[in-house]
This record gives sequence, structure tokens and C-alpha cells, in this order.
Amino acid sequence: MINNASQLNLFLSDFARLDGLKILVHGGGKKATELADAMGLKPKMTGGRRITDKANLDIVTMVYAGLLNKNIVAGLQALGCNALGLSGADANVIRAHKRIVKDIDYGFAGDVDGIGDRTISLFLNHGIIPVFSAITHDKKGQLLNTNADTIAAELAKGLSVEFDVELIYCFEKKGVLLKLDDEDSVVAHIDSAYYEVLKKEGIIAEGMLPKMENCFEALKSGVQKVLIGKPDLISDLNKTHTTLTL
Amino acid sequence: MINNASQLNLFLSDFARLDGLKILVHGGGKKATELADAMGLKPKMTGGRRITDKANLDIVTMVYAGLLNKNIVAGLQALGCNALGLSGADANVIRAHKRIVKDIDYGFAGDVDGIGDRTISLFLNHGIIPVFSAITHDKKGQLLNTNADTIAAELAKGLSVEFDVELIYCFEKKGVLLKLDDEDSVVAHIDSAYYEVLKKEGIIAEGMLPKMENCFEALKSGVQKVLIGKPDLISDLNKTHTTLTL
Repeated sequence: MINNASQLNLFLSDFARLDGLKILVHGGGKKATELADAMGLKPKMTGGRRITDKANLDIVTMVYAGLLNKNIVAGLQALGCNALGLSGADANVIRAHKRIVKDIDYGFAGDVDGIGDRTISLFLNHGIIPVFSAITHDKKGQLLNTNADTIAAELAKGLSVEFDVELIYCFEKKGVLLKLDDEDSVVAHIDSAYYEVLKKEGIIAEGMLPKMENCFEALKSGVQKVLIGKPDLISDLNKTHTTLTL
Repeated sequence: MINNASQLNLFLSDFARLDGLKILVHGGGKKATELADAMGLKPKMTGGRRITDKANLDIVTMVYAGLLNKNIVAGLQALGCNALGLSGADANVIRAHKRIVKDIDYGFAGDVDGIGDRTISLFLNHGIIPVFSAITHDKKGQLLNTNADTIAAELAKGLSVEFDVELIYCFEKKGVLLKLDDEDSVVAHIDSAYYEVLKKEGIIAEGMLPKMENCFEALKSGVQKVLIGKPDLISDLNKTHTTLTL
């Protein structure tokens, strides 16, 4: 959701200043599309959904786990934050499986099976700040393209056994909107009951639905609170945002 | 030096089977050239030497730290070897500076200042096998393209304070050759005195010279032994190779 260098630097300095143990998870779809364009590769789509074929898997591995992850890590290191870039394959921190083919074959898309919470704790307890790119593996040698929101939720769930975890989702809106085109219609607080109402009324739909499902699943698994808003939310919780609780 | 999948898999299973604590360092120049070609980028050369401009830095970051590093790590994980892929920026394990401009401006080429031996020890002592790509950083936010041989030598030197270190260089020859075009002319053993002779006679020259300088510098800094040979050397020390000692 951050697509220019000055926005990214601002976000990284906000992140570096955050107190307590912390983890960053990022994707990088826009940059991956740019690289695919530069290589003359067309995105492969089926039924309106993007398919990760071999060529696209290589691209997201290069862009997410390479270019973006290492530049984010170097940026945080410059700010005194001891970042360590990770894919799920590294120290086996996120195990996944290739998405089962039902109607659509998504190719090398990964659904998360579990996280290496002991290794992640080891890093955190030694002052190392994990920075996850949205790439996982199946422990059989196959890398997999995996949704960054899902990775964040799975990490939050897995680590909530040992730590008090707050999950902050940053995206291009100020929060969950009652009216999609009205930035002033942010809902301040959504609990499970209200979430059901918003789903039934079709207010939460399409792209927001899987994101919100991830959030409530994380809350049910022990995550204390989920916040949703723009990237500047992490430095100032007074900024308009949506808070989710059970 | 390993440029096809079956060779790589063989090397990784040999590496996974090695006893004791171990570290892998890799480059990936050939694959980087392929990506540059696919993007229509021409390698930038000055005086016969490759220059790392911004576009090429992005390419090596994507290929070394992304595509190759993560596939190597996933391959090792599949073999039960708990690999962790690293650039020098990750947990600040290798600090470097942009090469000083004298006659030639090499661009974003990095010369190593030091390694994060405590962090690397932490990994090793917890059963984590570091896999280094040939990318470092300057701790000011800049990634740098760095010679893989140099990284291996610097790691060996830094870790020899705490561990008994053997350094194995794998390349396309069976060892140091007395005659460049004769694979049967491998020198079995070179010590410092003989090295001076071989240099004086011009037998060690060009590409081999910086490699050998790295090796003898590592030996002087406490590394016990350096072996040079083909990749299959790591699984069978009876294979023809060159041993370097002080």
C-alpha cells in the first residue's frame, strides 16, 4: 500500500520508533507488476483472479523477498532498528501448502499451515525485528506466493500464545468504510456481532471480506486487538481508524 | 559456479549432509545476466570491469538475495537442513562501504568492513545454517553488490575467533592449475612460500589472484585451512583439489 520512496521512508521511521517487540509484514504487488511489464510478461488471470504460474512465482520471489525486503531491511538498519528479512522458507518460519485445486488452479499460491513460533521468539528475544515478505514454502522445496494479510494474521495468532499481540493492518483507506466512496464514513469500532450485521447488509464485501475474516479469526485465536487504517496510524493512534474486537 | 538445477540439487544434498556447523555463501552472476537480458539492460562495463549502477544493483538484489537465495534455502529445508537466507543487511551481519573511487567508479560495489559474528554465532548455536547471498549494506540504507569470495573469506576470518574454521572455495576447476588449460596440473598443496613463487612466475594471475589473496589473508587471520576445488569436493575430500596453508 506504500508505493513511493518518501512514503516508505516515513513509514519505516515510524515503525523504527515503535516501542516493544514488533514484526513487519509486506507484499509488493505493484512493483511485481512493474517487473513483469519490463520483462514483457502478462499477468495470468482466471475468473478475474490472478494465477501464480512459474514465471510469476519467480517475479514475486525476486521482488518481495529480494528487492523490497532487502531495501526495507537496509532502511530500518539505517534507523537503528535491527531488522532481519525473512521468507517463510528461512529457518522454516512459515510452512504452507500449495492451494488445493477446486474450481480454479491458483498455481503456486500458498495457504499457511503454521508458523515457527519458537524461532521467531528467539529472534524477538534477541532484539531482532523480523520483516516478512509474502513468500512461504511447503518444506518440500517449493516456494509459494502467499497473501500478506494472511501471513500477518497467522503470525499474530501463533505468537499470541507467548505474547500479548496487537495486529495493525495498513492500507489505502482510513479504516472500514460504511460507504466505499466516503472517506469520512469510517466505522470506529466493530465487534463480532456488528461484523455479522455489516456482512449481512453487504457493507463488508469483496476485497474487505477476506481481510476481515483474517482479523476475526486472529481475535478468536487470542490476538488482543486489531486496528485497520492508513500507514500513519502506527505512529499516532489518534488518527481515524477502525478497531476490531471480539 | 553451479548453473543447472540437477547440479545444484546434488550440491545442496552434499551440503546438507556435512557434519558440524556450516555456512553457505553464493553469488549468481549468470542468472543476473539472464534477467538483465530479459529486461533489455546491457551490462555496464568500464575498463573491462563490470560496474554496478542502480539498475544492476536492483537486479543482483532480486536475483542473489531473492530468487537464488530463497530457492537454495527452500531446497535445504526440504533436505532437513534448517537454512536461513541472509544478505549483509539482515540483522546487520555484514557491514560494508561503497568502494572508494580511484581510477574507476565501480558504482554500488561494496568492500566489507566487518561481520556480525555474535549474531551469526547465535544462529549457528541454535542449529540455524546461514546462507549468504553476495549483497551487503553500508548501515546507512544503501545495499551493495559484494564479491562472494570476499564475503566467504571475511566470514571465515571473523568466525575463526570463536570457532575452528575451514574454508572451501568451489569453482569450475579441480583446483589451482599450473597450466590453465590442463585440468591434470592441479597443485595439491600451496603454502605461503610457494604462493610467492607461483605469483612471481605469473602462474597465479588474473581472476585467481584476488581469490588467492582472500585465502591467504583468511589463513593469516586464524582460518585453519582453505580448500579449493569443484563443488563435489565438499562431499569427498579425496577428490583432486588444492589445499592452502600458511
